[in-house]
Amino acid sequence: MKHLLSIADLSGADIHGLLELTDHMVEISQRTIPKVPALRGKNVVSLFFEDSTRTRTSFDAAAKRLSADTMNFAVSSSSVNKGESLRDTIETISAMGVDAFVIRHKSSGAPQMITRWTTASVVNAGDGWHQHPTQALLDCYTIRTNLNRRDSFDNLRIAIVGDIKHSRVARSDVQAFTALGAHVTLVAPPTLLPPSLDGWPVEISYELDSILPDLDVLYLLRVQRERMDDALLPSLREYSSMYGLTAARAARLTAHALVMHPGPMNRGVEMVVDPADLAGSVILDQVTNGVAVRMAVLFQLLGSGGDLKGDAS
Amino acid sequence: MKHLLSIADLSGADIHGLLELTDHMVEISQRTIPKVPALRGKNVVSLFFEDSTRTRTSFDAAAKRLSADTMNFAVSSSSVNKGESLRDTIETISAMGVDAFVIRHKSSGAPQMITRWTTASVVNAGDGWHQHPTQALLDCYTIRTNLNRRDSFDNLRIAIVGDIKHSRVARSDVQAFTALGAHVTLVAPPTLLPPSLDGWPVEISYELDSILPDLDVLYLLRVQRERMDDALLPSLREYSSMYGLTAARAARLTAHALVMHPGPMNRGVEMVVDPADLAGSVILDQVTNGVAVRMAVLFQLLGSGGDLKGDAS
Amino acid sequence: MKHLLSIADLSGADIHGLLELTDHMVEISQRTIPKVPALRGKNVVSLFFEDSTRTRTSFDAAAKRLSADTMNFAVSSSSVNKGESLRDTIETISAMGVDAFVIRHKSSGAPQMITRWTTASVVNAGDGWHQHPTQALLDCYTIRTNLNRRDSFDNLRIAIVGDIKHSRVARSDVQAFTALGAHVTLVAPPTLLPPSLDGWPVEISYELDSILPDLDVLYLLRVQRERMDDALLPSLREYSSMYGLTAARAARLTAHALVMHPGPMNRGVEMVVDPADLAGSVILDQVTNGVAVRMAVLFQLLGSGGDLKGDAS
Repeated sequence: MKHLLSIADLSGADIHGLLELTDHMVEISQRTIPKVPALRGKNVVSLFFEDSTRTRTSFDAAAKRLSADTMNFAVSSSSVNKGESLRDTIETISAMGVDAFVIRHKSSGAPQMITRWTTASVVNAGDGWHQHPTQALLDCYTIRTNLNRRDSFDNLRIAIVGDIKHSRVARSDVQAFTALGAHVTLVAPPTLLPPSLDGWPVEISYELDSILPDLDVLYLLRVQRERMDDALLPSLREYSSMYGLTAARAARLTAHALVMHPGPMNRGVEMVVDPADLAGSVILDQVTNGVAVRMAVLFQLLGSGGDLKGDAS
Repeated sequence: MKHLLSIADLSGADIHGLLELTDHMVEISQRTIPKVPALRGKNVVSLFFEDSTRTRTSFDAAAKRLSADTMNFAVSSSSVNKGESLRDTIETISAMGVDAFVIRHKSSGAPQMITRWTTASVVNAGDGWHQHPTQALLDCYTIRTNLNRRDSFDNLRIAIVGDIKHSRVARSDVQAFTALGAHVTLVAPPTLLPPSLDGWPVEISYELDSILPDLDVLYLLRVQRERMDDALLPSLREYSSMYGLTAARAARLTAHALVMHPGPMNRGVEMVVDPADLAGSVILDQVTNGVAVRMAVLFQLLGSGGDLKGDAS
Repeated sequence: MKHLLSIADLSGADIHGLLELTDHMVEISQRTIPKVPALRGKNVVSLFFEDSTRTRTSFDAAAKRLSADTMNFAVSSSSVNKGESLRDTIETISAMGVDAFVIRHKSSGAPQMITRWTTASVVNAGDGWHQHPTQALLDCYTIRTNLNRRDSFDNLRIAIVGDIKHSRVARSDVQAFTALGAHVTLVAPPTLLPPSLDGWPVEISYELDSILPDLDVLYLLRVQRERMDDALLPSLREYSSMYGLTAARAARLTAHALVMHPGPMNRGVEMVVDPADLAGSVILDQVTNGVAVRMAVLFQLLGSGGDLKGDAS
């Protein structure tokens, strides 16, 4: 495994392997000194062409726990502003000595293209509407640990609710959840579904209420306020009344059902109830697991055997 | 001691304890390799909702000398821009594994509120007009060492001059200086004093000249140019003529008197003389001591016994 | 050697010494763990008053490979915005404990002036049209290794092409190349040459084509699009037709000739051919060598003997 570009490149067994490696990373993260020298001297460069403090920070924390050096580039301060091409930017930074690029880009496929211009590993941290594979892995890990599903997601019923059409999280999660055996239902108004769902191994529902009692996992997507400008949503209020998680809807979930969200939440829109009041909310677990999953990914790409034993003394 | 929110939470003995710990940190800072492994693996996150390179950098340097990992968030690049609530931001970053938050915020009380949303320690690095406790501690340490006042500030005469009304530095310093026994006089035009000074253990003077010869410490505050727009000051020139430190005024200080300023200085306004020409200026000592005091605070909050012996090899 | 301000301060022997030290740094950079503890506990502060991700990152990577701590200030977030003077900014940061400042400034001579206000070492990372000494050193190192010229550049023929007038790279390179014995020709339209070239040990050519077959090194400068607004260039197209490196011109270079550029390139202007298609392009070598040269400079300024033996375990 040289790059992590898409969940589509991983088999169920690959995903299982990464989740088991994540178990080790969780154990390291719980030590008094949560740091190992596994990636000492490795240089992990974050190159974010879209703003995302959350994801960038999570990768940064992961790299530091493995003792890698990190460098962050936000596009606003990079040479791309001087008209340098993406290729020249990548080749230049790469020539300084980079072991892994963590890339967020508004264009689908940019991380794939970047692999042509560097010998470093490339981790896709979100590209357009296409993929966000570490989000899918952390979501799988969160379900696996909270529902005690170490071996498979067989017969697990998961609903993903919201703006499926524009969501790389939805595309990645559908592939990962179904690769592990889950049954996935997409819930959205027709305007927020992709034009074609051929080949998506999912069911569709235009409404949420009827399926609530059957769910093991309710996964809410962030509704972008920009969608209203695109006339894809009549109003946030109407969206919320149909698809928002209210206290009444939450009460209809089974006792063991998980509520998940990739963040940041739109309170009062898709998240009407305060998730702090929901026994099943694992939204902060997702964040915590995100660091451990990214440690596993970076170690898988850059580490060599036996490095996880020592501590960072 | 779990948090450092306000000087008001500290007794005189608490302040003494932190200043003695600072002595150790000064010793470490003077070593050939000024670095100890005391906070290795600890994650110190700076979250600055107001710009302050000076304070943020000082905390950053302090954390690094103790071998902590550091992460910096400026508000302009954080999810707060996407409309995420302060609570969600704190809970999210906290879930990634944070040992201490260093918070600067324009609202008084924000750091206190943040303690409810995280299990991490919280250090107030300045909240509105309210408090800036590490500034007060570094000011105490600077006076203590330069005037050789290890045991108490009894009978010490300190004047704080300038925009008391809007100054968290003044509020913090008054509490700290008087807790150690000093006698404090506030010097300002009536428009730059708080509406009520009930409970402030200070004297007031509307003019500076008469008290100059009696002072052990002359502490000048930064005059914000915005105050003129608020019509609280007729002009910077008039302020300067009444309260600015000119060469003539400096000549009336006693030989041992200290001149202090929290920075950044407005040269030609509150600081008319070049402080480099003043024997009693300890303004750069304040900066140097700021790093050591912040090391002491972070170690007090996050360290465990015996860690200061080793070096960072 | 306390500072690195200008190539003019270095003898040919000094340059040779730094290039030999760079050989060691290249060896370190090629290790499995490319990191040594040579500058552990040293604090290297980048203070960039002009944007340059490329140079700042290169210094940052260099400092980290030597285990120094690094802090970066971009002018936009510094106290300089609050009207603080450059002197106060330097004195303040310096008081926090700085071992070296890496300075980029739009004014020629700023790094020299800064040496008066700090006891730290100062490295000029580009000041106005004046100097960019580490660029010249990395250029020398790139020529030295690629043309196997360890002892001298005697009889080497180098052309520097483009906007000489406004180029600190040209000024630094001319001094360094000629100090090592090379023969340098400046190639530019009259409007992009300095008003006087008295004392420059160079030849001048207003056209490129006639000298191409004689060159060992063709060094292309970046053409700033702003020059057209200054009426110094009729059009980029005309510049390109006269001085741009086209495939036809590249074909007229000798087989061993190197093509160099300090980056970022203006493709289609000074660089018409794709440098990836040129056997003689060493532009990415320049970037790679930049990190090693800056390691050598930082070690020369801050290191002490024998530190390069160990690894960063």
